[in-house]
Amino acid sequence: MNTLIQKIADNTETIGIIGLGYVGLPLAVSFAQAGVRVIGFDKSSDKVDKINHGDNYIKDIRDAVLREVVENIRLTATTDFSGIKECDALLICVPTPLDKFRKPDMSYIESACIAIGQNMKRGTFICLESTTYPTTTEDFMLPIIERESGLLHGKDFWLAYSPERVDPGNVSFHTKNTPKVLGAITPEGLEIGKKIYSKAIDRLHPVSSPKVAEMVKILENTYRLVNISLINELALLSGKMGIDIWEVIEAAKTKPFGFQAFYPGPGIGGHCIPLDPFYLEHIAKKYDFDLSMIHTAGHINMRMPHYMYIKIATALNKHKKPVNGSNILFLGVAYKPDIDDARESPALEIIDTIVRKGGLATYHDPYIPTVKTNEGTSLQSVQLTAETLRNADCVVITTNHAVFDPEMIQKHARLIVDLRNVIQEADEKVYKL
Amino acid sequence: MNTLIQKIADNTETIGIIGLGYVGLPLAVSFAQAGVRVIGFDKSSDKVDKINHGDNYIKDIRDAVLREVVENIRLTATTDFSGIKECDALLICVPTPLDKFRKPDMSYIESACIAIGQNMKRGTFICLESTTYPTTTEDFMLPIIERESGLLHGKDFWLAYSPERVDPGNVSFHTKNTPKVLGAITPEGLEIGKKIYSKAIDRLHPVSSPKVAEMVKILENTYRLVNISLINELALLSGKMGIDIWEVIEAAKTKPFGFQAFYPGPGIGGHCIPLDPFYLEHIAKKYDFDLSMIHTAGHINMRMPHYMYIKIATALNKHKKPVNGSNILFLGVAYKPDIDDARESPALEIIDTIVRKGGLATYHDPYIPTVKTNEGTSLQSVQLTAETLRNADCVVITTNHAVFDPEMIQKHARLIVDLRNVIQEADEKVYKL
Repeated sequence: MNTLIQKIADNTETIGIIGLGYVGLPLAVSFAQAGVRVIGFDKSSDKVDKINHGDNYIKDIRDAVLREVVENIRLTATTDFSGIKECDALLICVPTPLDKFRKPDMSYIESACIAIGQNMKRGTFICLESTTYPTTTEDFMLPIIERESGLLHGKDFWLAYSPERVDPGNVSFHTKNTPKVLGAITPEGLEIGKKIYSKAIDRLHPVSSPKVAEMVKILENTYRLVNISLINELALLSGKMGIDIWEVIEAAKTKPFGFQAFYPGPGIGGHCIPLDPFYLEHIAKKYDFDLSMIHTAGHINMRMPHYMYIKIATALNKHKKPVNGSNILFLGVAYKPDIDDARESPALEIIDTIVRKGGLATYHDPYIPTVKTNEGTSLQSVQLTAETLRNADCVVITTNHAVFDPEMIQKHARLIVDLRNVIQEADEKVYKL
Repeated sequence: MNTLIQKIADNTETIGIIGLGYVGLPLAVSFAQAGVRVIGFDKSSDKVDKINHGDNYIKDIRDAVLREVVENIRLTATTDFSGIKECDALLICVPTPLDKFRKPDMSYIESACIAIGQNMKRGTFICLESTTYPTTTEDFMLPIIERESGLLHGKDFWLAYSPERVDPGNVSFHTKNTPKVLGAITPEGLEIGKKIYSKAIDRLHPVSSPKVAEMVKILENTYRLVNISLINELALLSGKMGIDIWEVIEAAKTKPFGFQAFYPGPGIGGHCIPLDPFYLEHIAKKYDFDLSMIHTAGHINMRMPHYMYIKIATALNKHKKPVNGSNILFLGVAYKPDIDDARESPALEIIDTIVRKGGLATYHDPYIPTVKTNEGTSLQSVQLTAETLRNADCVVITTNHAVFDPEMIQKHARLIVDLRNVIQEADEKVYKL
């Protein structure tokens, strides 16, 4: 332990980051900017090549910053996991998706632990950042690492959990200035973790155990799932009652205490909100516990794209058109505004339904040139022109990218289904969620 | 309309407030402080007498302020509803409880509308402040008032809805400085309402209709019900997993965006959060709509007192004691800290269960000298001394009143079930939610 602490004090430690996606790469850059040597590990030779050439692929990182830390050889990337033995600390930022049955897919964490166990040197600090169910660090990771390494936790290495809070597209909060929760298995592990992370993160919030830190992240994202589902349900009811839910939310926001606004939409996308709560639901079963709030929220969320299809069909029907054979143009396939990520995007699910029903789906997204839906439809983004708008029997606004011009859309489109409250002055051809 | 607007401009209008509870009386005082003549109407001669003698009974009003507006004869109170004919504006602040089958009890609003219809003069502005389901103002109130008065809305009188946002015990926000949402049936009604309310309220937020304003209030309180229920459910799971939910919440609060903290407890009390969402559930049925989030949240909330009973029984069991025959002292019966209101308080429900199971329940609450539970048990608050604490087989902390001294409680109690995170340094005799 003392060797490692001395190295950290001298700024001579090497940090390995496993997984170079939207969490790992910004973290790697943040450490490299602090003058620490960082090795990035990823199975994708494409990502590794890009980094080693200083080519940035994460929207929230400034291109010049990545180039600088690569040119100064503070950040290198590799697909060769044997480089793990050069590292004093290993931070794991791998995906934790759900499988087709909505169960946690722990294979990425498992592979990372095996690679670490087989390669690490004695005296390494290991920390998981991926969102996962409480008890993962101690009950799932620890045995794998001890088994693969033959080393003993607390003596030969230290294990901790510190959830990432990356919010893609957030202009105020990024990796460095977002407070970070950290829980380790032993006090020594916590001490080392604090010294390491405080180089890259402005403010740390230590907690008493990894499972507390694991629950923190799940609480944060479950809060969002539940509230988005609630407002979606109220939006559907409001639609039936002739109440404009967007006006309701604006008015409720004037309450100066005890309220936080959430907005309805075609469903919940991205890599966190739609998935994380089901990690908790999974582990709860082991404790004979049903999480009814998450279950209900998940159900509403899962049905939203279908309800949105009904909205589109209803709007077309008012124009005496069926879905079958109609041209339907989707504006935005990113799961939230101003980002280039279509993972779990509800727009893709709606497109699948439209295609299945015989509709002719096209889309425009300024940040996503091509997509492939779950059901295998491949599409290329079309240009957003007066003509493409006019040619569509129905224009569906699925993402509220700031660059979309509501006036231009409203001027040329024949029929609009606005699922994001982009059109403020709605006329008779606009149908809002 | 012009007569009324001229009166308002001259500050010579008379405002009638119907219902002089925790909403109506502060509102009456706020208008009277603005120099407006106010008549308060209430069926309770006790309340009316108190006001006319300058005796304050609402904790959030300063005694001297009430005395002053009564002495200056700007505020008078009466049980005689024929005084309605003297009023230019009528603001309705009556209860909207649930009946025994959790259905809206609209009888108070109905009585108010009948009294208004039978007594009001032509040219009166009428506004409901009570929380209720969307469509109440237009579909429920309007027909009653027109029928009873023989007058015509929009010509002879104006009807509006403006939800109260009173948060008892809130030291920062009171009637005057809490922004107020206002929706009227006609533009003239909205104009008059704005002119009237702006005398007593710093900031108004007009909306397009009464039903939007009705939905605003329901959204605000449903948001709270759903989030308290979520954190209660997570608290129960955390208990099973050996995770301290209070530590989790403190850590989650360090997230600087997209999170608002709610705290678990023995259930939800008071006159709003446990009731209002069921008003919405009620009207939703008319639209063939099931509100599954509210339903699930309500279910969790309803079960919480029972789970708390189990917690108490489990703690006693560790001390080899049954509930039957044990002395159980409850600290706090108010539904939230630092207020004197035990309505819908979960503490009373837990006491009922304890009594039913043969436990000997006592309580201490510095603000509530006597209570009667739903099942008819009448209790008097006992003194909080070393002796009463020592004599209890179990001390249950049900309300986190700021005056409670955790050290003193912990020093003398033999066994503590802390449902409000009052005891920070828990030892082996403390069981937390």
